[in-house]
Formats: sequence, C-alpha cells, structure tokens
Amino acid sequence: MKMPGLLDALHGVLGDKGLLTEAADLAPHLIDWRGLYHGATPCVLRPATVAELAVAVRLCAAAGVAMVPQGGNTSMVGGATPDESGRQVVVSLIRMNRLRDLDPLDMTMTVEAGMVVQAAQSHAAAAGCLFPLSFGGEGTATIGGALSTNAGGNTTVRYGNARELALGLEVVLPNGAVIGGLRALRKDNTGYALRQLFIGAEGTLGFITAAVLRLFPAQPAQEVALCALRDEDAALALYRRFRGRDEGAVRAFEYMARNGMELVLRHIEGASLPLAQPAAHYALVNLSAARADAGLRGLLEAVLEEALEAGEVLDAAIAESEAQRAAIWRLREEHPEAQRRAGGSVKSDVSVPVSKVPELLRRCHADLARLIPGGRPIAFGHLGDGNIHMNLQQPEDMALDAFLARSEDVMMTVNTIVRDLNGSFSAEHGVGRLKTEMLRDWRGGAELETMRRIKAALDPAGLMNPGKLLP
Amino acid sequence: MKMPGLLDALHGVLGDKGLLTEAADLAPHLIDWRGLYHGATPCVLRPATVAELAVAVRLCAAAGVAMVPQGGNTSMVGGATPDESGRQVVVSLIRMNRLRDLDPLDMTMTVEAGMVVQAAQSHAAAAGCLFPLSFGGEGTATIGGALSTNAGGNTTVRYGNARELALGLEVVLPNGAVIGGLRALRKDNTGYALRQLFIGAEGTLGFITAAVLRLFPAQPAQEVALCALRDEDAALALYRRFRGRDEGAVRAFEYMARNGMELVLRHIEGASLPLAQPAAHYALVNLSAARADAGLRGLLEAVLEEALEAGEVLDAAIAESEAQRAAIWRLREEHPEAQRRAGGSVKSDVSVPVSKVPELLRRCHADLARLIPGGRPIAFGHLGDGNIHMNLQQPEDMALDAFLARSEDVMMTVNTIVRDLNGSFSAEHGVGRLKTEMLRDWRGGAELETMRRIKAALDPAGLMNPGKLLP
Repeated sequence: MKMPGLLDALHGVLGDKGLLTEAADLAPHLIDWRGLYHGATPCVLRPATVAELAVAVRLCAAAGVAMVPQGGNTSMVGGATPDESGRQVVVSLIRMNRLRDLDPLDMTMTVEAGMVVQAAQSHAAAAGCLFPLSFGGEGTATIGGALSTNAGGNTTVRYGNARELALGLEVVLPNGAVIGGLRALRKDNTGYALRQLFIGAEGTLGFITAAVLRLFPAQPAQEVALCALRDEDAALALYRRFRGRDEGAVRAFEYMARNGMELVLRHIEGASLPLAQPAAHYALVNLSAARADAGLRGLLEAVLEEALEAGEVLDAAIAESEAQRAAIWRLREEHPEAQRRAGGSVKSDVSVPVSKVPELLRRCHADLARLIPGGRPIAFGHLGDGNIHMNLQQPEDMALDAFLARSEDVMMTVNTIVRDLNGSFSAEHGVGRLKTEMLRDWRGGAELETMRRIKAALDPAGLMNPGKLLP
Repeated sequence: MKMPGLLDALHGVLGDKGLLTEAADLAPHLIDWRGLYHGATPCVLRPATVAELAVAVRLCAAAGVAMVPQGGNTSMVGGATPDESGRQVVVSLIRMNRLRDLDPLDMTMTVEAGMVVQAAQSHAAAAGCLFPLSFGGEGTATIGGALSTNAGGNTTVRYGNARELALGLEVVLPNGAVIGGLRALRKDNTGYALRQLFIGAEGTLGFITAAVLRLFPAQPAQEVALCALRDEDAALALYRRFRGRDEGAVRAFEYMARNGMELVLRHIEGASLPLAQPAAHYALVNLSAARADAGLRGLLEAVLEEALEAGEVLDAAIAESEAQRAAIWRLREEHPEAQRRAGGSVKSDVSVPVSKVPELLRRCHADLARLIPGGRPIAFGHLGDGNIHMNLQQPEDMALDAFLARSEDVMMTVNTIVRDLNGSFSAEHGVGRLKTEMLRDWRGGAELETMRRIKAALDPAGLMNPGKLLP
C-alpha cells in the first residue's frame, strides 16, 4: 500500500479527529522538547481506543511504515519525534487518557497511556491516595511516556522509579496484537516479565496503552528544610543521617550547588533564599508520613542539630507552612528554567553509586571549569539515588554557537568521570536519539547483542520508533 | 561431541570437585523438594567461577546438550531438576557462593548466585544492614534461585519481591557469553531492562551468576502481635487500618485460618496459642522501624484498640520479647511442616487483588469442602500482597493415593475462583514443570507468543532448562 492509500485506510479507522495531516497540526509533534531535532511526518495518528490503535498499527505494519509513539513529547533525548525522512508516522496517545479504574482498597488505579502524569496524581489525591511519581515535566508528560522511559524524578528514593509503580500493562505489539496484562497483583510469577521489558523500551518494542499503577496512603505530614552545607561530603553525610534514622520517611533528598542557585535567584521572579547567606552547597530535605504523630519535626530537628554540631550543616531553614515548603521546592524545580533564561547549556543526566556522588561533583566541577574557561558547572539532582544533573552553562562572554559546538566535549568530560566511578550515562532520561552511540560504547558486547536479538524477535521489520535507543 | 568426549572436556575445565558423575553424588540433585519428579542426568557440573561456567556452557552448547540450572533445589514446582531422559546436564551454582562486595554507605552488596539466602541476610546483618528477602526455604534456597523465580515471601508487603531488591546482574548466556551488568545504580535507563527479563525466567534464558542487591537500614524496633479475627473481612480491614496509619511500618501481615493453626498446635512440638481460645481466623502483624522512638508500640495498641472496638479483632496477644516474637512467627512458619506430618496435601500458591482476599477465602473453603468431603482446606499466607497458599489436606479416612489422584480437581477448583477474581495461578513459586499447562491456558495468545519469541531469540537451540516455564 502506498502512502495515499494508507492515509485513506487510516482515515477510515480513525476519523477526522484521529488523523492529522495539515502542516499546522503536525508542527508541534515534530520538534522535541529541547529543540535538538526537527523531524517530518506525513501524518499524526491520534487513536481514541486500543481497538483503533491496534487496527491502525496493523495497517502501518502491512504497509511497512515506521511508527513513532508520542505522549507529551517531553523527551530530553529526542525520543518521541520522527526523523527527517518524512516517512515515519507519529502515533500520539494523548486522546487515550481515560481513568479506567481506581480502587482505594487495593490501592491501584488503571489509567490509559495518554493521561498526563499530573492528572494521574490528581485522580489519586481525589481518592485520598498518593501516586508518588513526580518530576519536572509532570504537567505535560504522559503516563505512557513515563513508563516507556522508566521515569524517575524526586521521589525515587522513597517510592522507586516508574517501573516499580506499575503492576500491569496493556500493550499493542508491532504487529497489532494486544497483550492484555492489566493485572493488579503484587505477586504474579507466571512467565517472562514482559511488563518489565516494555517499560523503559522507549517505544521500540510496542505501544504501552494502559497500566495498573500502585497507589500509596496520602502523606499529610510533611517537613521540608533547606540546608547550607560545608561541602560535597557533608551532603552525603546528611543524607545518610536521615536514611539511618528513618529511611521510610525520606520522600526526597535533593542536592544543589552555588552556581545553579545563583541563576535561580537572579532569573526566577519571587525566588529568594531563606538563609542568612549563600553557600557553596545546598540540600533540600523532604520528609513525609501518613500520620501526624510520626514525629517528623522531631526527627528533622534532631538530625539537623547533629549535623550542625558535626559541622556538616552550616545553616538550615525549616518551612513552617505549605507556602514555605513550596517556596523551597521552587528553588530546586526552577533550575532548568533559570538555566534556559541564562543562555545555552549542555546537559548530562548521570548516576553513580551514592557513595561516589561527592567525588563525581568535585571532579566534574574541576574538569568542566578547565575544559571551557568561564563556563559555569551547574550541578543539582537526586542525591539519594546517586542521580546528578551535571550541566555546563554557557560562559557569558562566549557565543552560543561556539559553546554548543563543544557539546560533545562537555558530555565526554562528564561521562569519562562517571564511567570511572561505575556509573551510568543516562540515569532517568533514557537513550532516545541523542545517546544511541553512548549505548554502543557503554553497553556493547553481549549486552547490546542481547538487546538486538530482543528487538529483532519482537519487531522483526524494525517499524517501532526506528533510530531510537539502539545504535 | 558425544557424551563421553564432552565429559572429558568438562572434567578438564572443572576438575574433580566441579564434575560429579557417581550415582550417589547425583542423587540429591535429581529429586525436587516436594518429591514430585524423579529425573536422571549423566553428570552434575559445579563450576567455582564465572569463567569456568562460561567455558562449560560453551562446551555443552557446542555438543547440543541441555542444561538445568540448580541452586538449593527448593523449587515448589519442579523447576530445578532434570527430566527423565538422562540427557540433561545439571549445573549447580552452589560453589559460586562468594560475597564479592558489601558497601554499607551505598547500602548494596554483590553476591554470587550460589550464596544461600540466609547467608546473604547474615552478611548484611554483620554490616549493620538489613537484606529483607525472607521466605520458608531461606536456609537452603540460593540467591540465584530466588532471583530466577522472583521469590516473594513475608516481607514483600514492605520491601518488594526479589526483583525489586536487585540493582544489577551478571549473567552467562546460553552461548557462554557473559553479561557483566553488576551496576549498583538505583537509576540507569540505558536500553532494555535485561536484568528484569532474567529475573523470573527460571533459568530458561541463561544463568544468573551474581547480583548487586539492595540493603536497608537495620530495623531494631520490632512489634509482633497475633490477633484472633471475627471473619475474613476483618483480616482485610485490620490490614487496611495499619496500612493507612503507617504503610512503611508494616513489615509483614500474615493470615492464617483455623484448620492450619490446629495442625500446627497438634503436630509441632512446643507450639502453643498465646490467646485464651482458638478462633476461626488469625492475623500475624509485624511492625518494624529503624529507630526506637518511632512509636511502634503505640501504633500497634491504638490500631488494635480501634479494631477491637469495631468488633474486627476478638482478642490479641502482643509479644513482649524476642522469644515471644519468634514463638508467634513459628506458628505461621511451621504450617508447611505441620501439613506434611498430618498427611498428604494439594498445594496452590495463588494471588488476587488484595480487596478480593476475603471472597477468595470464603469461596475456596466452600468449594473445596464440597469437592472432597472430609478434606480440610488450609489457607494461610501474605494477605498484604493478596497472596494466599490455598491448600487442601487429605481427609483422615481417605487413602493418600486416592486423595492425590484428585490433585488436578483440587487445583482446578481453586484456579477457577482465582481466575474469576482476576488473580494469578502462581504468585511466588513460578511455573517450573508443574504449571506449564496453566501458563498456556492463562497466558495464551499474544503474551505466550511474545514469550516464545524471546526464548527463541536468546536460546535458539532450546538448551536452557527445557520443559520448564514454557508449555
């Protein structure tokens, strides 16, 4: 079937709302979140149901047309946009956004892939429960995308990654067959863990169309503090103090360094530091509990006092209201926006064993400063998971183009250190199109060969999201 | 290569200690834990290192000889013994039992597959940490077996299954290639989740040879109570009360019914009920915390008081010492042994959504009593995970053979109800050889087809643990 015939057949299945072909409608689907890639496509499919998607996939498969699954299109690595050939069809799941079920007794909810992460959080909250997945793009990113990239974020330290929050999946395979695996079971050892394979596969093995997600009891008791720290080691030491006392109470433990905080304070309206003076290193601690009598405030104060006496913490501000908690969190969450306003930056999303975070920070800071004089290393992230966003901000006196031309060097500098510390080149953003060569370099040999075999077994024609994940 | 030539070659690699061929040495490797299958083998390989195993696997693969991985040989479903053909080679991992690394800062340890689960617990404890995986066979079962079957057990409700405790894996593939994936990272989204695929694959895709395991802070604060309950609904209600108050404090929540408790009290020396009188339903609650001031006793007493007032709990005994805690746990843990001493039984290991546990218990009890008059339904298990061991004990006036001849009927009766409740036919024991036809029946269609494709891609000659997992 040639493309015009295919488009007619797809239109018959999906209708006007389900098939976009006008250039203006296609445009937002063709550029990735970071603006790294500008692709082309003959059409965007927007199925409203699994049945529609399955038929559409069969039509595309029969025509040998490649498909690019897309949710909120917030990939940080170009994972959800088509290439420049104009021959890849975008399949947007955003119309499949229903809440199919929510059971507060079982503490599970079944949602479709196109539901925005924040909407999933809201559905849970309305039922008195917590859906803990939380990250920067949550207002736009979808559940399907979050699962396909195994999103992490702020609460992994307590609740795990997206992978650990999904009990069951519904999947449309590259041939249009449907796996109906929406089981709401904590224990189910019946064959290969197909669910785990589709999670994190970045849409290269099929479409995740719905998921059974774990919920948790709401956590009305919250404590948030911003701490000024002596050095990188103090950040790790403080985390270990909290973890040792009550590992289950640590909802998030975030690290920030001076450079990033300065950008936030300069570029974000209303941002202010709740401490007497700036520091070189900061930690944001968020404790939470389901019950008011869990003694969180006592725990927080006791640990901070110990750390102050030990000289690890120089100063600390404890939020006294929801507004103050939000204000402290905002200092962390506005880091990417502050970086954007301050000019260009090269981003890395790396992880190392938690004990190696201080060394990672020190070595990257030194080597990046040396690599591009005047460049400002911006380090922040989820210290409790060993996951640091190790970015480099454009020097104020350097042209953007000249700076971005050094992107490879910057990423290489960071990755060399990360590899030396037995870390990973992509902690939570995945591989997408940006990092396929890193995958070849880091995961070559038996590991990559096994991935290729799996890809060939499940998608023999190579129609699912080609050019992503695998080099 | 014919078998004698292969044996010579294997002997050259593995030496006397690594290659067993005497009948007396082979015997313990040929019968499964439950005595369901009696297999045969020309030899048992016992490699001491990954390098030895890799060479041995290449030799077997070149000779087209099938391999059966074995750890502690405690499979409940005949998953680790060879078939009757005498052509399958047993590969025992028990000599590969080293602790390669333990880092209490990172809270990770790297252990080899042949380490016994209890030994892993001990290593963690010696370093002031907790390795939480805990189940009946832990004194014999190995880490490799626990991962290959994704073992669950008592603490899943708090810490997850074996899958959720493994950060990285080392694997020898069916062709002898080695995947060196021993990464100690909480976040690492770099390609397909191969680790997740080998976990739970029951040795049909390769050999797990080592793993990086998550550790947790030790939990010196413990509270254990045994509760007599009004009915099945009260068991669920009590669990929900604890979960709602402090989900992170519930280390285990186990259900037991009258019949099983009677067998334990009759057949296990020293077992006694710490309550004024027997009940039809019991719950064992185990709360734990890292800090002494977490208020566990207050939490326990407050919840029990509420439940007593609500009429859900009829009576409760709170352990006042480590000895009393152990005595209460023994009532639960000796259920299998008491069943064994009381005669034959047919076992099921099923799961349903947690909210469906009361209905599961009631319907199974009624239907099993109707199926075989005089048979005693024995229900116990991990209510917090929806995982109930739903067994039927031989009637006292029925011959064992005649009873066991009804095994299929018994399992079918349970499974019909479980399926109606959207549950699983194997919660934590896996598929093994016993349940391959159930897999075909329950997971047929696209799901089974996808599993077959993965098997063919990774083990094209079908040499890894044939006859297990896949029908």
